[in-house]
Amino acid sequence: MLQNDLLLKVLRGEQAERTPVWMMRQAGRYLPEYMVLREKYGFFERCQTPELACEITIQPVNIIGVDAAILFSDILVVPQAMGLEVQLVESKGPYLPDPIKTQKDLTRVRVPDVQETLGYVFDAIKLIKRELNNRVPLIGFAGAPWTILCYMVQGKGSKTFDEAKAFCYTQPELAHTLLQMITDTTIAYLQAQVKAGADTVQIFDSWGGLLGPADFENLSLQYIRQIVTALKDLAPTIIFAKGAWHSLASMAATGAQGLGIDWCISPQMARQFAGNQVTLQGNFDPAKLLSPIPVIQKEVKQMLDAFGSGRHIANLGHGILPNVPVDHARAFVDSVKNYKG
Amino acid sequence: MLQNDLLLKVLRGEQAERTPVWMMRQAGRYLPEYMVLREKYGFFERCQTPELACEITIQPVNIIGVDAAILFSDILVVPQAMGLEVQLVESKGPYLPDPIKTQKDLTRVRVPDVQETLGYVFDAIKLIKRELNNRVPLIGFAGAPWTILCYMVQGKGSKTFDEAKAFCYTQPELAHTLLQMITDTTIAYLQAQVKAGADTVQIFDSWGGLLGPADFENLSLQYIRQIVTALKDLAPTIIFAKGAWHSLASMAATGAQGLGIDWCISPQMARQFAGNQVTLQGNFDPAKLLSPIPVIQKEVKQMLDAFGSGRHIANLGHGILPNVPVDHARAFVDSVKNYKG
Repeated sequence: MLQNDLLLKVLRGEQAERTPVWMMRQAGRYLPEYMVLREKYGFFERCQTPELACEITIQPVNIIGVDAAILFSDILVVPQAMGLEVQLVESKGPYLPDPIKTQKDLTRVRVPDVQETLGYVFDAIKLIKRELNNRVPLIGFAGAPWTILCYMVQGKGSKTFDEAKAFCYTQPELAHTLLQMITDTTIAYLQAQVKAGADTVQIFDSWGGLLGPADFENLSLQYIRQIVTALKDLAPTIIFAKGAWHSLASMAATGAQGLGIDWCISPQMARQFAGNQVTLQGNFDPAKLLSPIPVIQKEVKQMLDAFGSGRHIANLGHGILPNVPVDHARAFVDSVKNYKG
Repeated sequence: MLQNDLLLKVLRGEQAERTPVWMMRQAGRYLPEYMVLREKYGFFERCQTPELACEITIQPVNIIGVDAAILFSDILVVPQAMGLEVQLVESKGPYLPDPIKTQKDLTRVRVPDVQETLGYVFDAIKLIKRELNNRVPLIGFAGAPWTILCYMVQGKGSKTFDEAKAFCYTQPELAHTLLQMITDTTIAYLQAQVKAGADTVQIFDSWGGLLGPADFENLSLQYIRQIVTALKDLAPTIIFAKGAWHSLASMAATGAQGLGIDWCISPQMARQFAGNQVTLQGNFDPAKLLSPIPVIQKEVKQMLDAFGSGRHIANLGHGILPNVPVDHARAFVDSVKNYKG
């Protein structure tokens, strides 16, 4: 049994003693202990070596004292498993040298056997669970199909992902074929993560906010819905579609237990849109962790006051920035833990 | 008197024969005629030579048939006039080699005499007005103080502008001093644009959407409000704070006549937030201009249906992309012109 199951309780809508807290990208570059491993091993080496992934995953639990661990990995292991070459150039972002542009390109992509292609992830999860020794729950994750398509088509990061969007607008059948293949892979991948030991999973739709409401439903949410449904009897799911505030009600209606929100929406408005049957997760401005510690403490209190007691997981509104001092990250987490409502 | 004053009528809330249409960044890289001048002259040469700025400004009026011209210039002429070096490297974006980081850096910045530093803009406006010969109105513009601060502090484009945000969060007094200096410069600049002949002005807050609702009020909107107030008796103003949907009601309350919206909000929801006393401008997804023409025509009709008759200016939700075919841009404009509600 978990010694700290605050996160899972709150996801299930049960009363918890206090608000749980973790940080997106908490196993990351702001931690000197992570930087040591980053200098020694390449990105995919860190992902693919269960011992390294395990050590990195557990670092923020030991160093910062978060209420959950999140698997150290990357959303782009999925397109890699589907047959595309993915390079991760440090500080430069992802690069896919042969992106998908045409019907013919699609023949290079398959729905893989996840045990064969992503077995190292499940091995890492098993090891992490053993090492965590029931201290806190473990969050598994995958990218949303739309966000994965963005990289598979654009081939690299982008402010607008206009090539990915143009692909969907000009070749909708092709786009939907690809989205369904990504969805099928992701379902098998997340189910296997849960079977390996993940206590909950988060779906990251980092680029959902680039789509208008109708396109978000058509190109993103209908596929996320399939994933949530397929996980329904296995583990609680959290959807984080950054910027897609307009669809919080539809996301809540998928049956997901949690919805991540970014800092550009007030907790009150998010609750109004999402309704009362779902847990909200967020939404501290990551750049605000660069503020002096007393400001962080004050603003965390304001955030928790605004969310009120009940279905809330404290988190950032996006990943922690690499230049955040460790004691600022700790001040964020401690402020949540010490909050008296 | 203007032969086509649809835009001004709709901004004033008067009944117009049809919805006016223009496109953000309509004088831009998708036009082969613009590319000819771009290859021949540097960016600031194009901005600072009234004959070139005039020719570029009028190109989309002649070639595409938009209902308004918008001054060809850049928001970064303001930090330049305030004393900072600004480089615009083609296809790489802006670069400010000596950004503002400290109190001492602020001594390098001044509120300039706009006639002395930006006289070339007013000369361009006078020339454009003469050449337009009352065919369509001319839109002047400036960046919102927050967006200008982003560049002055970060020194270049960014996805998160976290250095600019950290500057504001850690040195709030300094930030507000700088924001007020930018505001004072911008007021004088826009007033002079109107005196030179601009029929209306748009305030571009490209990075307003990076701020949460409370920070948006504190770091952006309170300064935009000063600008709108200072322009009140001179010309109608349009605020375009991309992504700041949460503050549409507060933006409407400034007294601005128009509010730009991006494509990530439905027209119905935007109207609900903004109320009925303001004109909405937008909000076609720029990437959708890469779709086949029949799709563009269908989606324009859907957009106009959704906005309904009355206070709406058709536009994109952000600048036109460089890779949009000219006949697609024309199809967008023609679809608005030929719309039967």
